[in-house]
Amino acid sequence: MGVAGSGKTTIGKALAQELGLPFYDADNFHPQSNIDKMRQGTALTDDDRHPWLTDLAAWISRWEGEKGAVLACSALKEQYRKILQSVENITWVYLEGNSEMILQRLESRSGHFMPAALLESQFAALEEPDYGIRVNVSSSPAEIVAKILSKVKMMNAFEFGLIGLGVMGKSLALNLAGKGISISVYNRHVEGREEGIAAGLIADNPKLPNLRGFDNLGDFIHSLARPRKVMMMIYSGAIDKQLEELIPILEAGDVVIDGGNSFYKDTIRRADLLAEKDILYLGTGISGGEEGARKGPSIMAGGSERAYLLMAHYFDLIAAKDQAGEPCSAYIGPGGAGHFVKMVHNGIEYAEMQLLSEIYYLLRHFLKIPPSEIAGIFSEWHTGELNSYLLEITIDILRKEEDGELLLDKILDQAEQKGTGGLSALAALEYGVPYGPLAEAVMARTLSAMRSRRLTAAKLYSREAEATATDREALLSKVKNAYSAARLINHQIGFSLMSEASLRNQWELDPARIAAIWTNGCIIRSVLMEDLALLLTEDDAILTSPVWVPKMRGWQQDFADIVALGLQQGFALPVLSSALNYFLGYTSADSPANLIQAQRDYFGAHTYRRRDKPEDQNFHTNWINI
Amino acid sequence: MGVAGSGKTTIGKALAQELGLPFYDADNFHPQSNIDKMRQGTALTDDDRHPWLTDLAAWISRWEGEKGAVLACSALKEQYRKILQSVENITWVYLEGNSEMILQRLESRSGHFMPAALLESQFAALEEPDYGIRVNVSSSPAEIVAKILSKVKMMNAFEFGLIGLGVMGKSLALNLAGKGISISVYNRHVEGREEGIAAGLIADNPKLPNLRGFDNLGDFIHSLARPRKVMMMIYSGAIDKQLEELIPILEAGDVVIDGGNSFYKDTIRRADLLAEKDILYLGTGISGGEEGARKGPSIMAGGSERAYLLMAHYFDLIAAKDQAGEPCSAYIGPGGAGHFVKMVHNGIEYAEMQLLSEIYYLLRHFLKIPPSEIAGIFSEWHTGELNSYLLEITIDILRKEEDGELLLDKILDQAEQKGTGGLSALAALEYGVPYGPLAEAVMARTLSAMRSRRLTAAKLYSREAEATATDREALLSKVKNAYSAARLINHQIGFSLMSEASLRNQWELDPARIAAIWTNGCIIRSVLMEDLALLLTEDDAILTSPVWVPKMRGWQQDFADIVALGLQQGFALPVLSSALNYFLGYTSADSPANLIQAQRDYFGAHTYRRRDKPEDQNFHTNWINI
Repeated sequence: MGVAGSGKTTIGKALAQELGLPFYDADNFHPQSNIDKMRQGTALTDDDRHPWLTDLAAWISRWEGEKGAVLACSALKEQYRKILQSVENITWVYLEGNSEMILQRLESRSGHFMPAALLESQFAALEEPDYGIRVNVSSSPAEIVAKILSKVKMMNAFEFGLIGLGVMGKSLALNLAGKGISISVYNRHVEGREEGIAAGLIADNPKLPNLRGFDNLGDFIHSLARPRKVMMMIYSGAIDKQLEELIPILEAGDVVIDGGNSFYKDTIRRADLLAEKDILYLGTGISGGEEGARKGPSIMAGGSERAYLLMAHYFDLIAAKDQAGEPCSAYIGPGGAGHFVKMVHNGIEYAEMQLLSEIYYLLRHFLKIPPSEIAGIFSEWHTGELNSYLLEITIDILRKEEDGELLLDKILDQAEQKGTGGLSALAALEYGVPYGPLAEAVMARTLSAMRSRRLTAAKLYSREAEATATDREALLSKVKNAYSAARLINHQIGFSLMSEASLRNQWELDPARIAAIWTNGCIIRSVLMEDLALLLTEDDAILTSPVWVPKMRGWQQDFADIVALGLQQGFALPVLSSALNYFLGYTSADSPANLIQAQRDYFGAHTYRRRDKPEDQNFHTNWINI
Repeated sequence: MGVAGSGKTTIGKALAQELGLPFYDADNFHPQSNIDKMRQGTALTDDDRHPWLTDLAAWISRWEGEKGAVLACSALKEQYRKILQSVENITWVYLEGNSEMILQRLESRSGHFMPAALLESQFAALEEPDYGIRVNVSSSPAEIVAKILSKVKMMNAFEFGLIGLGVMGKSLALNLAGKGISISVYNRHVEGREEGIAAGLIADNPKLPNLRGFDNLGDFIHSLARPRKVMMMIYSGAIDKQLEELIPILEAGDVVIDGGNSFYKDTIRRADLLAEKDILYLGTGISGGEEGARKGPSIMAGGSERAYLLMAHYFDLIAAKDQAGEPCSAYIGPGGAGHFVKMVHNGIEYAEMQLLSEIYYLLRHFLKIPPSEIAGIFSEWHTGELNSYLLEITIDILRKEEDGELLLDKILDQAEQKGTGGLSALAALEYGVPYGPLAEAVMARTLSAMRSRRLTAAKLYSREAEATATDREALLSKVKNAYSAARLINHQIGFSLMSEASLRNQWELDPARIAAIWTNGCIIRSVLMEDLALLLTEDDAILTSPVWVPKMRGWQQDFADIVALGLQQGFALPVLSSALNYFLGYTSADSPANLIQAQRDYFGAHTYRRRDKPEDQNFHTNWINI
């Protein structure tokens, strides 16, 4: 837009070529009556312009339905532009110049039907827009076009912003872009890399024009439509610094999502900090690893419900779908609820992984079954109740060869951890939930990492693991039952940890909904989880549910037998053992904790309560026998 | 002291009666030559006074060795008082009055050998002391005595201040006072109690004149000699508030000791806070429970070494003594080292208590041995290598009857905890030390506390624990070996947790010295600890030490058999199991952690290292088999 002679046609054509779009000149859409008037040197009235503008608006709407277009149109008054605005997504480009310059141009131009005399009335009518792109026309056409293109790139038009292009961030960005969301991505500049990381992603994905890359945070933010939706997919240790940079350039009403594995207490603190600026915050757990993030993760959003309503569309679009076709994405609860639930997810995952390792270890070294056969056994298990993603990948792993040998055997047996499992165990201790299997899973990793000490100690305590494979079939069926039982226990404690945290924090978590969004997309998806999504009510007591009691009754002795046999044969089974001990403790009417209470009262005068007295009464005894 | 006629004899006698001390008049110690001179109205010279003052100084020293005395003596000049100061602990009371008033008194007095004419020379000689207590003699003798008594109470003379008269604080105060330390105690006023808690302690201990009580913090602090030594024996949650009150009334160079169970990171923060005011801080763990605190605890001081040097005398005086007669008290290291080590002490204690509960449980319900016989068995164990304080009190508990029945059986089997065990487990997770037995001990307590759930679940999974007591003797010996093995493992992990924390925090902990101060006074004192005090070097690897390898070899199969049998019979043995699993994992050259690494790489592209490649190389595989 701009007055006659500002260069709309020249610039518009060049721009259209650069953008690969058709170019249209609004003047060509005038009814004949208007053209005649102008030729006669008569100024058009607004009544003259109205049918012309309405007609153009219809065309614009049609072009938008195709792939867009560049239109040159004076559009001097705000009221004209309002008529033209038949679609949201118009980028206005105002070609600005003073009257002397424009006059000079017009006089040197020939063949144009508007006499220069009309220019003054144009300047009188001009209402400059305070939006869109404004370019001074004193430069050369090429420069003007370049300037417009660079500003178009920066326009507040893209829907979604994503910070951090690690494994998870990159996959999510491609997932979003693939679903047709216009998304800007940003990655801080990395020392020693010439090309920006975001630019690299764009270059690798030429078929996604709705994906734009930045390595300047300000440009990235300004590329987003308001209210901005900015998701951080970065290392939890870098969140505070990132927020420090973001806060000054964000505005009230913008939404920030932390999609990483932040500790839930940090999330609560950060949400409070951003609330001071009226910026909405969502601490959102995302599970599924690289593949899940790319093809459909499980999404656990926590924090501002208002923010969730703004984001739900995007989350639902990219999330995995459950069996009913519903997205595996939910608003979990206020504050740190989303990150807490993701943390517990990872806790359950840690224990499940260690359980599988222990089962594999028993089958291979106690039952002396070769890996390929174990893969076969697992495949059979996978067809039934034991079906799970972790079992599935274990089967692949047990079949993966390198140069004709099992790749697994070449991997160093020192497990690492990224912390969420450990944090989940810490939370269990803090909330008084006896999640022994998780603590043991975390500690099994740390013990495995002490390899040089293990090698030293192993020489001093050599054991001959005796393979008593006389009744392999019977043992195998017991191992399967032990694994089934331990998994059920692991899930019960995981859900009871969430239930305890929900009570204490007044989060009102919905266990069935959580199980439902964990039935697909996430690492611990399984047939068991599908059962739990149907079964779980507010009561998290899986082990006392009529559905599971008969099964556990059938499994319990096999479970104990396998742990007992394994330990006697010298196999460390920390998570199987801990799950069994939880089960035995949980199902014992009497525990020896009365001795602990007596000891505490003996040496510390901590007092005790009695079975035969009201529970609010405390007693102290002088225990020394005279 | 004071001029003639100021009332020294009258006031002194009344004061002595109030204090229960003998009264002496210095005039009665003059040599005859001096008495004659004074009768003749001749003023004494300093040369005349010298033998008299020297003689008095000897008497004062003698009285101090008894229970003290009140002495009336003019002592007008500073140089006389210096001669008299044969002991530190003199409280000077200066009876002050103007010459008109004194003259009037003297003239109304008869039978005194000093003519009133000498008074003017006395006033001329008088050098008023700027220390001690100063009382104007214009009031009645009773009022003057009351004023002196109240000021004596406030004198800056007591060596040691103690805040908080709970079970531990009270016991420590009596321990210190009993050792002859002059100690002021303070307890905040408790709502609803008319009598101050400190006043109550004083009233209960009339034979300890070196113990004074306050319920006003300012008075308490002003009662202490500089640099003040103030020990807090209060709930860790109240420390920050107490310090807030203390900081403004303390001075540079004063020492504050936190003798409670504060979290070591809080201790580091507080030490830094007080260092800003040049107040020295000692985070000091004290173990031994009520009895230990009263008769001799184990003391673990951490923080300012300068402060420790000021306190060592007191700590050594009250601490328990080890076999060599050395005090069970040591400077552990800087920062939070003292509280960290105390926290680990409590972690070891938690696991030891739970171990004893599991062993008792097995003997009673699996081997079907009656409690009195278990006490007998434990007593026999107590004569040998298994001797420990916790075993000793368990024997007492197993023999404690009420109305002819075992008191233990009436105690509710819901264990409680005060947090240090849990914090120790948290620290193990944080430092990556696989302290499963501790985590399981903490969680066993929380599981026991879920009693109503246990009762519900127990009905659904009734088990018949079968008593296979065919070979009771053999099983009993296996149980003993299992207990011995589990204890050794518990101690190894506890010490390895300290060793890891020492490395990370640069504390340079000395494990042998720590074991030494744990050989007496504390809850985990034992014959095993005495062995460790001799054995431990910087290498904390107990399980690979030549002393223990043969023993563990002898125990390991029994250990596994007992855990296996117990679990198969339905007994929860979480700490025994976890200790066994640690042992089996620690002594395994190969672990199934390679499977965990493969899984992590599969779903999260976390990469892995290989056995056949340098350890600093990371590999990633596309695991999906085509």
